[in-house]
Amino acid sequence: MITLSLVGIGSGNPDHLTRQALHTLEAADVILLPRKGEEKTELAELRRMISTEMLQTSPKIVEFDYPLRDAETPKYLDGVNTWHDALADIWQHLIQDHAPSDGHVALMVWGDPSLYDSTLRIAERLRTRGIELQISVVPGITSLQMLTAAHAIPLNSLGGAVHITTGRKLADEGWPESVPTVAVMLDGKCSFQSLPTDGVDIWWGAYVGMPQQILLNGPLNEVGPTIIKTRALARAENGWIMDIYLLKRRL
Amino acid sequence: MITLSLVGIGSGNPDHLTRQALHTLEAADVILLPRKGEEKTELAELRRMISTEMLQTSPKIVEFDYPLRDAETPKYLDGVNTWHDALADIWQHLIQDHAPSDGHVALMVWGDPSLYDSTLRIAERLRTRGIELQISVVPGITSLQMLTAAHAIPLNSLGGAVHITTGRKLADEGWPESVPTVAVMLDGKCSFQSLPTDGVDIWWGAYVGMPQQILLNGPLNEVGPTIIKTRALARAENGWIMDIYLLKRRL
Repeated sequence: MITLSLVGIGSGNPDHLTRQALHTLEAADVILLPRKGEEKTELAELRRMISTEMLQTSPKIVEFDYPLRDAETPKYLDGVNTWHDALADIWQHLIQDHAPSDGHVALMVWGDPSLYDSTLRIAERLRTRGIELQISVVPGITSLQMLTAAHAIPLNSLGGAVHITTGRKLADEGWPESVPTVAVMLDGKCSFQSLPTDGVDIWWGAYVGMPQQILLNGPLNEVGPTIIKTRALARAENGWIMDIYLLKRRL
Repeated sequence: MITLSLVGIGSGNPDHLTRQALHTLEAADVILLPRKGEEKTELAELRRMISTEMLQTSPKIVEFDYPLRDAETPKYLDGVNTWHDALADIWQHLIQDHAPSDGHVALMVWGDPSLYDSTLRIAERLRTRGIELQISVVPGITSLQMLTAAHAIPLNSLGGAVHITTGRKLADEGWPESVPTVAVMLDGKCSFQSLPTDGVDIWWGAYVGMPQQILLNGPLNEVGPTIIKTRALARAENGWIMDIYLLKRRL
């Protein structure tokens, strides 16, 4: 039986690592390290630095390339599922080639493996292919937690509910009437533009927790256009961007 | 100017601490340590152990008692606000008595200071009382993250939204129709009993991340009654309980 540890490593800063994350990586026989593909270079480098400089042990490091995701697939979820299948193929061969049959294999995951991340779904696919697998998950600090920490604000209103969604869903389905707070992730299109802005405040952050962190907040109708401009500039300057935001209805 | 650091320490296991949490506590002049009141003894002991055994420095430890919360206040939120005022009084005097005027004061918070926690709201009150304050937040692993990690499941369905709420809100407002996943915290009454159970699965955990962790999952109509019994027994045995659960509509 293979143990596969999916280790949340936080959002771009080695200080986000928990003791449990470090100990789990140190206990691994093999660490699978994605080299390029969907990865931003700076983030891939951080993952390599963690595995080569921060551990007290020397697990075998096996690098691999991400398959390309076909953005032309007509249905978004079909494209994602095909991509997960391709990644499962790669993992399967790497594990069979590099890990002992009762080995411990670890993968580092941005943020937390539970939140808008593919690794748990890919790992489940291995089980259907005859690999006996115990999946172990180590939580990590998410970009949503970095956002609220950087702005020093609570996620929820006092005793209130919170809605977490994607840019795509926000644009398609809006913001449920009864929920005072919505957090939006994976939004490449500033989908807050699809919402009525009256009485809404926004807390936005890009590269949260990293040296180039940018924060903006205020009434959505005032700050929204500034965020759109700032985001485009920062993306051009850095060559990539990861951002996230929180919207709250004013009471 | 006082720096007040609110440091998320995770959910009952020192291995949940991040490097940033440890470094922030080590850099503090004073750590305010709640002694009793709303605290479970085992959790209060863990907080004391962190401050006395895990740090490379020796900040001054100042213990204090929590005020009692008046559960008889007719409106729930009025009671909470009065309690926050009382805690702000206590913090204000402790900071004035024990910290230098440009000192660094730290407080350890269960889970993450952003999620169903009072400390940010109490800290804001200090600002309205003439204390010049820079508030710094260090995120920590939440019990929700420990729950999904322990069950090795994603929080969200593929690309789907997530609703996070309290037991009180779930009972009052139900579960928004369009959202496939709901996470319920602070539920002393197994409020899932108020929901239609058809086509719903539950993942429940008590004492998540701690040695006495209990996990149950399955179809809500089958497992719900078992959870109610198990919860009552565990609470009687341990003298306290903290639990959390996730509900998903079957696709």
